Amino acid sequence: MTLRQQLNRIVFGTDTRAGRNFDIILLWIILLSVMVVMLESVPELGANFKAEFYIIEWILTVIFTLEYLIRIWISPKPIKYIFSFWGIVDLLSILPTYLSFFLVGYHYLLVVRIFRLLRVFRVLKLVRFSTEAQGLIEALKSSLYKISIFFMALIAIVTLMGTVIYVVEGGEEGFTSIPQSIYWAIVTITTVGYGDLVPHTVLGKFISSAAMIIGYAIIAVPTGIVTVAMSNAKEVGKDCKNCGAKNRIAAAFCDNCGQVFEPKNEK
Amino acid sequence: MTLRQQLNRIVFGTDTRAGRNFDIILLWIILLSVMVVMLESVPELGANFKAEFYIIEWILTVIFTLEYLIRIWISPKPIKYIFSFWGIVDLLSILPTYLSFFLVGYHYLLVVRIFRLLRVFRVLKLVRFSTEAQGLIEALKSSLYKISIFFMALIAIVTLMGTVIYVVEGGEEGFTSIPQSIYWAIVTITTVGYGDLVPHTVLGKFISSAAMIIGYAIIAVPTGIVTVAMSNAKEVGKDCKNCGAKNRIAAAFCDNCGQVFEPKNEK
Amino acid sequence: MTLRQQLNRIVFGTDTRAGRNFDIILLWIILLSVMVVMLESVPELGANFKAEFYIIEWILTVIFTLEYLIRIWISPKPIKYIFSFWGIVDLLSILPTYLSFFLVGYHYLLVVRIFRLLRVFRVLKLVRFSTEAQGLIEALKSSLYKISIFFMALIAIVTLMGTVIYVVEGGEEGFTSIPQSIYWAIVTITTVGYGDLVPHTVLGKFISSAAMIIGYAIIAVPTGIVTVAMSNAKEVGKDCKNCGAKNRIAAAFCDNCGQVFEPKNEK
Amino acid sequence: MTLRQQLNRIVFGTDTRAGRNFDIILLWIILLSVMVVMLESVPELGANFKAEFYIIEWILTVIFTLEYLIRIWISPKPIKYIFSFWGIVDLLSILPTYLSFFLVGYHYLLVVRIFRLLRVFRVLKLVRFSTEAQGLIEALKSSLYKISIFFMALIAIVTLMGTVIYVVEGGEEGFTSIPQSIYWAIVTITTVGYGDLVPHTVLGKFISSAAMIIGYAIIAVPTGIVTVAMSNAKEVGKDCKNCGAKNRIAAAFCDNCGQVFEPKNEK
Repeated sequence: MTLRQQLNRIVFGTDTRAGRNFDIILLWIILLSVMVVMLESVPELGANFKAEFYIIEWILTVIFTLEYLIRIWISPKPIKYIFSFWGIVDLLSILPTYLSFFLVGYHYLLVVRIFRLLRVFRVLKLVRFSTEAQGLIEALKSSLYKISIFFMALIAIVTLMGTVIYVVEGGEEGFTSIPQSIYWAIVTITTVGYGDLVPHTVLGKFISSAAMIIGYAIIAVPTGIVTVAMSNAKEVGKDCKNCGAKNRIAAAFCDNCGQVFEPKNEK
Repeated sequence: MTLRQQLNRIVFGTDTRAGRNFDIILLWIILLSVMVVMLESVPELGANFKAEFYIIEWILTVIFTLEYLIRIWISPKPIKYIFSFWGIVDLLSILPTYLSFFLVGYHYLLVVRIFRLLRVFRVLKLVRFSTEAQGLIEALKSSLYKISIFFMALIAIVTLMGTVIYVVEGGEEGFTSIPQSIYWAIVTITTVGYGDLVPHTVLGKFISSAAMIIGYAIIAVPTGIVTVAMSNAKEVGKDCKNCGAKNRIAAAFCDNCGQVFEPKNEK
Repeated sequence: MTLRQQLNRIVFGTDTRAGRNFDIILLWIILLSVMVVMLESVPELGANFKAEFYIIEWILTVIFTLEYLIRIWISPKPIKYIFSFWGIVDLLSILPTYLSFFLVGYHYLLVVRIFRLLRVFRVLKLVRFSTEAQGLIEALKSSLYKISIFFMALIAIVTLMGTVIYVVEGGEEGFTSIPQSIYWAIVTITTVGYGDLVPHTVLGKFISSAAMIIGYAIIAVPTGIVTVAMSNAKEVGKDCKNCGAKNRIAAAFCDNCGQVFEPKNEK
Repeated sequence: MTLRQQLNRIVFGTDTRAGRNFDIILLWIILLSVMVVMLESVPELGANFKAEFYIIEWILTVIFTLEYLIRIWISPKPIKYIFSFWGIVDLLSILPTYLSFFLVGYHYLLVVRIFRLLRVFRVLKLVRFSTEAQGLIEALKSSLYKISIFFMALIAIVTLMGTVIYVVEGGEEGFTSIPQSIYWAIVTITTVGYGDLVPHTVLGKFISSAAMIIGYAIIAVPTGIVTVAMSNAKEVGKDCKNCGAKNRIAAAFCDNCGQVFEPKNEK
C-alpha cells in the first residue's frame, strides 16, 4: 500500500483506528481554531495575548494547509475537489491568515476564518453521524414548498403591517420610514420584541396588539407543517416489496397485493 | 383571433409562452413598484432621489393604468370586474398617483400604493402556485372555529389580567389605564416582551410571572389545533369511490363496502 | 303559563325568539358595561366624561340588578343560585356601584365590575356555543396531569437558574435577591425577554444563553402534550357499540367482536 | 420488628400511613426551607428578620441532619448511599449551615442550600408520582439524538450569525466581540429579545430580521420532534404477546401472526 493509499484510508476512512483518530483529532483542532478566532475578537484578550494568539494561529494554519495539500494530493479528481463546496471552505480557512501578511489593517478579513466551523460537519459526516440528521433534513425538505408559501404570506403581512404602523405613528419615534417600520413588524410578529421601537399612539398600540396575536397564532402554521412532515417521515421504508405500494403501516401482509414481507419490529 | 382574444390569452392564460412571460414581467414590475414606495419613504433617499422616484413612479403608473384598462376591456363583465376585490386593488394601485396632482401635501395618500403588493398573489394564482396553498388554507379554515374560541378565551384572559395589574401597579409607571394595562398583558402573554411597560411591585412581578407561564403554556393550544387539522388534511381525497366513506387510509379495498379502488401511491 | 314560567323560558331558554333575543341583548349590554369600566379608567376620558359615565353606569346597574332579582325569583332553588359561581359573579357585577355610595375614595373597588366580562361566557353557554369548546377543554383536561408535571419541572428549573444567576451577577444591577432573579429566569425561559433585567457579566451571559436555549427547547414539551391529546380527542366517539372497545378507527365492523355499526362519515 | 426496620418502612415505604405522612411532612419542610433561603436573600427581609431566619434555619438543619443520619443508618449499603446522587444532595442541604460557623463572610455559600429543592423530586418519586413523568422522559429520551443534532445546527447558526453581525455592526454599540455578538444571536433567534443589544445599521437590521424569521421557523423543529416522539410513546405496550411484533394498533388479533390477545381499552 503506497503512502497515498494509506493517507486516503486515514483521511477519508472511518474503518481503521488511525482513520477514527484522525477525525477526532481534526474535530478538536477545528473547535480550538474557532475558539481562537472568537477569543481574539474580545478587546481585552486580543490586546493582552496578542503574541499567544499569533503563534497558535500560525501553528493551526500550517496544520490546515498541510491537510489541504494532502486532500488535493490524494483526491482522485483534485480540480473537482478544489472547486467543490468543501474545497472552498478549506481554502477560506487558511487564506485569511496568509493574506494578513499583505493586507495589513484589514481586520475583519481574519473573521472569515470562523467558517472553519463548517468543517466540523464534514468530520461528523464521515463518522456516520448523519443518518439521523438525514431523516430530519428529508422531513424539512418535503415541507419546504409549504413553508415557502408560509414565508411569502408572512413577508406580505409584515410589509402591509409595517406600512400601516408607519402611517399611524406618523413617522415619529423611530418609525421614520417604511423599511424601518417593516423591521418593527418583524420584531413584533416573531415575538422577539426588542423594545427599541415601540408604538406610542393609542391606535399604534391597538395595531401592535393585533400583530402580536397574529404572530402568536401563525407560529402554529410552520410547527404544524413540520410536525406532520416528521410524522409522515417516520413511516418511510415500510413500503410493500412486492407491488411497491407505500405507507402499508404495521402490516405483515401488504394489504394491497397480499405479498408477505418481513415485518420490521420498529422501535 | 381578434386582438381582444389574443390579449385575453396573454393576460389570463398561462398555457402560452406569451402568457407566462406576461405574468413573470408583471411580477417583477409589481415588486419594483413596491420597492419604490418603500425606498421613497426613507428620508435620505426620498430627498436625494426625488426626481428619479418621480419618473419611475409615473412610468409604472402608466403601465398599471394600461393594464387596468386592458383588463376592463377584455373582461366579459367589465362592471363586475371593476367592483371585484382585484378590480379595487388595481384601482387603488394607480389612483393615489393621479390624486397627488390635486391633493398636494397628502403625503400618506401615496402609501396606499403599497397595496400593489397584493397583486403579486393574483399573478401567483395564475401560475398554479396555489394548489399547495389551498391545502394550507383548508386546514386553517377547518380549525377556524376552534381557533376563534381560543381567541375569545385569550381576550378574556388579557382583559382580566390587565385589570388586575392596573390595580396592583396602582396606575403608575405606564400602567395608567385599563386599556394600557391590557396592552401590557398582550405584550406579555404572547411572549413579545417589549419592555416598555414592566411591573415594579413585587406582587406585579408575581402576576407577570404567572402571565408569562400561562402564555408559554397556551401557545400549545393553537399549535395543537393547527397540527391536528393539517394531519387530517393530508388524508383528504382518499375516500371510497363506491360508498363515499371517508378517511379509508392506505387500503386497496374500502373496508366499509369492499369495493376495490385504485390505490394512490402517496408520497 | 304564569309570568314566572314565561320569564324562565326567556332567561334560560334558547328555543324561543324572545329567549334568543334576550341572550343577544344581554351580550351587548355586558360588552358595553365592560367597555365603560375600561374607558372610565383612562385619565383623560374619566375626567372629561365623568357625568356621562356616571349616568350610563347607573342605567346598566339598574338593568343588571333587575336581571339579578329575576334570576333569584325564577330560580327553583334561589339560595343555591345566590351562592353558585354565576350568582356570585352577578352580585359582584352590581355591588361595587352601590358600595361606591358609602365608600367614597375606594376607587379600585369599581374595577371589580370588570368581572362582568365573565358573564359573557354564561350567555355563550346558553346558545350552545360550547360544544366545540368542550372538545378543547376535554383535550386539555386529559393532558392536565402531564402538564402539571411539566410545570413542576419548570418551577424547579427557574428556581435553580435564578439562584445561580443571583450568585453569578453578585446581587447587582437588578439581581438583588433570589425571588427577583427567579423573576428574571421566568422572563428569560418563557422567551418574553422584557430587558428590565439583563446579565452584565460574561458568565451571566453564558448562563442566560443556556436558559434561552433550554426555554426554546422545552416549549416543545407542552406543545407535544397538547397536540397528542387533541389528536386523540378527535377519535373519541368511535367506540364499538357492541363490546365497548375504544378507538376502532374508520372501521365498519368492530375488529374486536365483529359487530356491525353505522360508520360515521367523519369530516 | 426492630426500630431500624420500622424507620425503614416509614422513610422508604409508602404503604403505611406513617410512611405517607412522613413523605408529606418532609415535602412541606423542604418547601419551607427553600422559601427561607429565598426570602433571606431579599435585602429588606434579610436585615429585619435576621434572628427569625437564623432560628428557623437551625431547626430545619437539625431536622435534615437527623434525617440524613437515619438514612445512613437504615441504608443497607451506607457508603453507597453517601456517594450516591441523593446522598450528596442531602449532604449539600445541611453542610453550608455548619460551614457558616467557620467561614464567616462566605455569604453565597448558604445559597447552595437551594439545592434542597431537588429533594422534592425524591419524595414525589416515592409516592408513585413518577409513572406519568416516566412517559414524558421516555419520549424525550427517544428524541434526544435528533434534538442534539438540532442543537449542534443551532449553535453553528448562532456562531456564524453572531460573527456576521459583529463585522456588520463594526464592533460598536455593544457588538464589541464575537462571543458578545453570539450572545445577541442567541437572544434574537430564540425570540427572547431583551433589547440590550440591538442592531443600528441598516444591514444589521436586515440580518436581524432574517435571524428572527429563521428562529421563528426552526422552533418548529424541536416541537415536531417531541410531538412525534410523544405520539409514538402513547402506542407503547400494544405489542403482540405472541410474536412480539410492535405497534399493532387497535387490533384484537395480531395482524402479524394471528394470535388473539386481550384488547386493552385504552383511555
